Amino acid sequence: MAKSTQLIDNEVFRAYATYTTIVLLKMMLMSLVTAYFRITRKVRNWEYCLAFVNPEDVASFGKGETAKKYLRTDPDVERVRRGHLNDLENIVPFVGIGLLYALSGPELSTALLHFRIFTGARILHTFAYLIPLPQPGRGLSWAVAYTVTISMAYKVLKTALYL
Amino acid sequence: MAKSTQLIDNEVFRAYATYTTIVLLKMMLMSLVTAYFRITRKVRNWEYCLAFVNPEDVASFGKGETAKKYLRTDPDVERVRRGHLNDLENIVPFVGIGLLYALSGPELSTALLHFRIFTGARILHTFAYLIPLPQPGRGLSWAVAYTVTISMAYKVLKTALYL
Amino acid sequence: MAKSTQLIDNEVFRAYATYTTIVLLKMMLMSLVTAYFRITRKVRNWEYCLAFVNPEDVASFGKGETAKKYLRTDPDVERVRRGHLNDLENIVPFVGIGLLYALSGPELSTALLHFRIFTGARILHTFAYLIPLPQPGRGLSWAVAYTVTISMAYKVLKTALYL
Repeated sequence: MAKSTQLIDNEVFRAYATYTTIVLLKMMLMSLVTAYFRITRKVRNWEYCLAFVNPEDVASFGKGETAKKYLRTDPDVERVRRGHLNDLENIVPFVGIGLLYALSGPELSTALLHFRIFTGARILHTFAYLIPLPQPGRGLSWAVAYTVTISMAYKVLKTALYL
Repeated sequence: MAKSTQLIDNEVFRAYATYTTIVLLKMMLMSLVTAYFRITRKVRNWEYCLAFVNPEDVASFGKGETAKKYLRTDPDVERVRRGHLNDLENIVPFVGIGLLYALSGPELSTALLHFRIFTGARILHTFAYLIPLPQPGRGLSWAVAYTVTISMAYKVLKTALYL
Repeated sequence: MAKSTQLIDNEVFRAYATYTTIVLLKMMLMSLVTAYFRITRKVRNWEYCLAFVNPEDVASFGKGETAKKYLRTDPDVERVRRGHLNDLENIVPFVGIGLLYALSGPELSTALLHFRIFTGARILHTFAYLIPLPQPGRGLSWAVAYTVTISMAYKVLKTALYL
């Protein structure tokens, strides 16, 4: 047990653990937001790209045509799902590169700066997507988080490069 | 080499490694299921959100209109792809938070309980999606895996919090 | 700090860090390619599954109907997005299983072989998707990367199995 406890005792690693958990929880929250919109808009269990839904999900609404009218898409649900996918595309690189970055021995203050800006930018991005805020709010918050990840990747490659 | 071997000697970490590999392999299996449905339904290489496919994929079926009739969507392929995306949305947080959880020094029995329930719930979720089973089978298995991830996140934040 | 620096001093782990960073950066590049196609095709900020876009994104193009004509889908943007999603589906398992593999004490030469083939195959896959190359170019590069991940998973389970 000693080994693992030592890694989690490292301050940079603890900061990584904290912010990674926060952004992953934020991403998971999108599932609940989707469910909320589906229920309030009666677009139950509809998923991506629709026109297709799962017919078993509307079985409780009635028989045949009565149920089928709920099998449709909804712009608000679409919006949440696009935000969710954008999270996946951007948070996956952060989690992977961030772990390697935390292990590459950065300064604690520099590491905190990276993690905090990334987390703040992604939370802002979610609000910008869901409210929605006028552009370039969403574009800028996306770009800031993207740049932070690139900066961490640069540090990893500089420290660990082994082709 | 000593360092890495030591980490993998930790029992909690070995359990994490085992269950993470299993759920990731399960997720990868969805690609093969998609391919299987595409071939049996002649909806080759169609991907998400369709109406668009890759025309080069149907070139071998004949010229012009003969080939184009295969460029369409199919409810079964759709269903697998929605399941695949749901996997991504839920297994990515498990892999990330689970790693931090395994390093935060949990009891072996508690950790095993988390990993086993999550893995079982996601396998059940896949069957519920593909067969499909009547609701709330799929919804419940999703919720169980979701709750396990939240529980691990809570332990990580309690142990490692460093904002 | 010692602990983390030691892990990154391990040669297999450094190789993992390098190739993981490269494939994640390659995946992130897909966002920029999407943006490029959107701007050149005036399909701004359209995302997955279209027919729905974010109306706020076309506000700067004019009022009402003038702006709305830009809210449409485009086959090239579709193609990039499918490639991006395929990356997520395949690179996430590589990052997760690869980390466990790197910690399971493989031979350096074997590990390098796995990481190099995977990275090469995924870069080839991206070119095959975007140019596009005639099949089976894309299918083969996908299968090679898939097989490499399975091979790493086998090694992890053989070394660490703890159910």
